[in-house]
Amino acid sequence: MEADRLARQLSFALEIDKEKQVLRQTRLLGYGRRENDAEHAWHMTVMAYLLREYANERIDLARTMIMTLTHDLVEIYAGDTYAYDVQGRETAHAREQEAADRLFSLLPDDQARDLRDLWEEFERNDTPEARFAHAMDNVQPMMLNDANGGRDWRARELPRSAPASRNEMTRLGSTRLAEYFDDVLDAHVAAGNLRDE
Amino acid sequence: MEADRLARQLSFALEIDKEKQVLRQTRLLGYGRRENDAEHAWHMTVMAYLLREYANERIDLARTMIMTLTHDLVEIYAGDTYAYDVQGRETAHAREQEAADRLFSLLPDDQARDLRDLWEEFERNDTPEARFAHAMDNVQPMMLNDANGGRDWRARELPRSAPASRNEMTRLGSTRLAEYFDDVLDAHVAAGNLRDE
Repeated sequence: MEADRLARQLSFALEIDKEKQVLRQTRLLGYGRRENDAEHAWHMTVMAYLLREYANERIDLARTMIMTLTHDLVEIYAGDTYAYDVQGRETAHAREQEAADRLFSLLPDDQARDLRDLWEEFERNDTPEARFAHAMDNVQPMMLNDANGGRDWRARELPRSAPASRNEMTRLGSTRLAEYFDDVLDAHVAAGNLRDE
Repeated sequence: MEADRLARQLSFALEIDKEKQVLRQTRLLGYGRRENDAEHAWHMTVMAYLLREYANERIDLARTMIMTLTHDLVEIYAGDTYAYDVQGRETAHAREQEAADRLFSLLPDDQARDLRDLWEEFERNDTPEARFAHAMDNVQPMMLNDANGGRDWRARELPRSAPASRNEMTRLGSTRLAEYFDDVLDAHVAAGNLRDE
């Protein structure tokens, strides 16, 4: 029994190695290669720790961190959907539910339930932890896009409203950080990296 | 004041992006490319959550997770030192202290102190959280080396004592996980991937 439990935990731990191969659109600092979901999850989780004082509501840091570390695991099977890909987002939900069924079933039942619940909570975005996790999910790539001179925004000819709508998600979790990135987006409009509307 | 605090936190958050470019010796599942420190930190932190029931002592999960997420940050400046590189390890300590001075000074003083203290605690390995963090630091690459058929151990013609000495670090944090990997190492000796002694 106990040996089987450990074997299931380790088989899940091994399977999630594949998250390191799910590429995102965001590029590393210095406009290097594209980053992957595991790197993104690591980065936004450290940022959740560093920036927790700016959460609008009191958050349980451990729950928030487990959520940010695991919120993209379903993309191992469902793939990453680019933030501004409207069509992709419509079908992403069904693909991600199937992926969650498949992935979490590797774990012992109690842990499968815990991680599934945490992922559903993130998706519903209806708790302080989920709202702050979404803030980190948006702030991390926005910080990199900004540091990389807005080149990806410019190349895609995005209007300000595209990243600004993401920043509204940030605002639900952290008014202060959303205000900071309002100014960042204004500067990129002024620099011609985002289309004014 | 407050704007300066946030600016310092974000400059640190941006600087640590470089951890994604510090390569380790361990290869991804499927004997793919080498993994980097950010991926390793993400992976071992998820494993700390999954495997916490096997810790020898009661641990504070949030503290353990912050430690595992940040324990390799100094390698951004000091570089990774391979686990079995005895000469490299001798000079690593001084290089890592200098790197810590430089890196953590980007942060507001209180957070610089918190992360420096946590890193020093990890290095001293004298708390339940540090011991379990070291167990994860060893178990994560050992799990991958095992799943990759022990090819790296075989290629380097390592004796069993090399990974076994790392497994003694695991034992300080988790007797159960060390026992599991004792058996794994025995199987790799039997398969000729590790030299018997």
